[in-house]
Amino acid sequence: MSANPDGKPTKVSELDGEAPESTDFANYFCTYAYIYHQKDMLEDHKRTGAYYQAVLSNKRQFQGKVVLDVGTGSGILAIFAAKAGAKKVYAVEATNMAQHARNLVEHNKVGHIVEVIQGTIESISLPEKVDIIISEWMGYFLLRESMLDSVLVARDRFLAPGGALYPSHAAIYMAPIRSNLANQRTGEFQGSMEGWAEFLQEMQHYYQVSLDCLSDAYRSEQKDYYHHTSQWTDTHPQQLLGPAAPFIKYDLHKLTLEELKAPLKAEFVLHMTDGGPVDALCGFFDVWFKGSEDNPTDNEIRLTTGPDPTGATHWGQQTFPLHPPIDCAPNDKLRVSIEVTRRADNQRLLAVKAAISVEGNSIYAEQSKTPRNFRWNIE
Amino acid sequence: MSANPDGKPTKVSELDGEAPESTDFANYFCTYAYIYHQKDMLEDHKRTGAYYQAVLSNKRQFQGKVVLDVGTGSGILAIFAAKAGAKKVYAVEATNMAQHARNLVEHNKVGHIVEVIQGTIESISLPEKVDIIISEWMGYFLLRESMLDSVLVARDRFLAPGGALYPSHAAIYMAPIRSNLANQRTGEFQGSMEGWAEFLQEMQHYYQVSLDCLSDAYRSEQKDYYHHTSQWTDTHPQQLLGPAAPFIKYDLHKLTLEELKAPLKAEFVLHMTDGGPVDALCGFFDVWFKGSEDNPTDNEIRLTTGPDPTGATHWGQQTFPLHPPIDCAPNDKLRVSIEVTRRADNQRLLAVKAAISVEGNSIYAEQSKTPRNFRWNIE
Repeated sequence: MSANPDGKPTKVSELDGEAPESTDFANYFCTYAYIYHQKDMLEDHKRTGAYYQAVLSNKRQFQGKVVLDVGTGSGILAIFAAKAGAKKVYAVEATNMAQHARNLVEHNKVGHIVEVIQGTIESISLPEKVDIIISEWMGYFLLRESMLDSVLVARDRFLAPGGALYPSHAAIYMAPIRSNLANQRTGEFQGSMEGWAEFLQEMQHYYQVSLDCLSDAYRSEQKDYYHHTSQWTDTHPQQLLGPAAPFIKYDLHKLTLEELKAPLKAEFVLHMTDGGPVDALCGFFDVWFKGSEDNPTDNEIRLTTGPDPTGATHWGQQTFPLHPPIDCAPNDKLRVSIEVTRRADNQRLLAVKAAISVEGNSIYAEQSKTPRNFRWNIE
Repeated sequence: MSANPDGKPTKVSELDGEAPESTDFANYFCTYAYIYHQKDMLEDHKRTGAYYQAVLSNKRQFQGKVVLDVGTGSGILAIFAAKAGAKKVYAVEATNMAQHARNLVEHNKVGHIVEVIQGTIESISLPEKVDIIISEWMGYFLLRESMLDSVLVARDRFLAPGGALYPSHAAIYMAPIRSNLANQRTGEFQGSMEGWAEFLQEMQHYYQVSLDCLSDAYRSEQKDYYHHTSQWTDTHPQQLLGPAAPFIKYDLHKLTLEELKAPLKAEFVLHMTDGGPVDALCGFFDVWFKGSEDNPTDNEIRLTTGPDPTGATHWGQQTFPLHPPIDCAPNDKLRVSIEVTRRADNQRLLAVKAAISVEGNSIYAEQSKTPRNFRWNIE
């Protein structure tokens, strides 16, 4: 490719910092070095449009201000900030996409305002504090990719007192849905185990080697894959069996890095409008652009990634299959204790645990007083 | 998963060594920690059967011998060697698949012969020299994955004088083929560039940002993807427009690590049985099990991955699209200068360059005296 994706920055700005650590680059940063991937994000107009509105419908907040864009990618948010009247925009990008961002900034005649800096946010320094930090850091289920860490680092290092974060708030939701996913996954899992049985026979007959002793481990590996992995979906609102409930709300001005890195534990209730079976939980997030207390927005913008009849954002929703499904009646409640943690094998990926019980007047509530435990990986 | 794929060995054998370097683990080793992936390789019966034959039809060569299996995975080749009469087998595996290999070895009652050692071959040590090194190290186009490096390191460190490598020889071939791949890729590339043009208009109309200045880079990125990337194919022999030519043959007992790491340069001729257009070159490899000069096999076994009417091995073939195709007549020759190098961004992936001219009495030969240059990445 023209943009060498090996992540080694060639020093262009005096402020350029370090490349990502190489394992993190291989696991995470590398895809962001492709224009193809930037295009995918840019043409998600619910996403790009929300940022455009958040900036351009709040020009008064950007007028004459110093702005930092964390993970600028193609540079689009930095350009928005410049067009909204920012005095100076520092646009930080770890991958070689920084080179394209420099071109784009010049080409759009904001080169005198936007300075593209190549390096990780943790490794660079800025000559001044900033009034606004803008960033599109959200991953699947909000927290996948753990990029919010870098935004909080940037906030603590570079944001002037009273300064504003764009976005400023975030929430994660779960909703009970009907879905074919759990059924489909169950079928696929059974097919896979039948294939394993045939495979064992072949190995025995062809090579006189018995692989039975791996069956439990294979079953567990395949179960992890089919029953304990969430999936990207474009969920239709008509799949909802009850309203989505937010189980965590973040004020990004106040959230600490320690709080963010700790396991996220929450308890919440899902009110069933329709009866079950509940095939899956549907997880998604919203973010809000409210500015800071000292510099609130004139127009509060909300970006939602929930089920939408006009189609999902590129984040879609994360669907967590319930195997077997949970039976319940209309007006029952699902009480959910959830825990979201970072994965030991890759800190940018997530593990989710949930304990779910049914409450209400139905027979299902009677039968399901003891919470059932579920777990999923978000890949 | 049950086998924690983070690669950190828990010391079980006294001989256990170090885990792979973490970037190399993320880029390469991680998939081998899944039984699912091991099953994929094991149930390739052309592959597993060739190794089975190479060992079990040459019991005399294994009788009472000390064997080393480099990258044992599930442990299958170590078990074959034990069943053939080996006195001792050291089975080295870097990932946590080693734990399953230990189970399998016990379960198949060769635990007194096979010792599974977890660690990279570069980090472990053995208490004795070995008579035979067996390994299934081959990647796409033979050299992808660069795992042969580790086998040569093992040979230089652990193989007794006169000892044998299984396999002992290898060759890589190219053949001229008719294929829809180049055409299909051309269509996809055009579609992608049309999508880009629409995208540019949207970005202008929705956000007043011009991305024209990225068009050349995007075109080049997409060209790399569609025209300069080889593809896994199951090529049918009837697609061949002439016989395959081997362009490199390795005697693995003699090949040095330095030779292997250096760019591979070769010149060869493809004899056209049929006329063109030649849509693609089809690359594949064979390996031979001949034993060593001091301990030759009784039955020489050959594993070929070439076009096969009964279906490909799991390696398939690598098809290198020629864009645009090369015109030529029956009995013309294609003269090919090839260069295969390791990729700067990932030493386990390959880049291939070829300069191709047409020779013969046809008008095509007259028109194509100047070699045309091609390049591809093997992903």
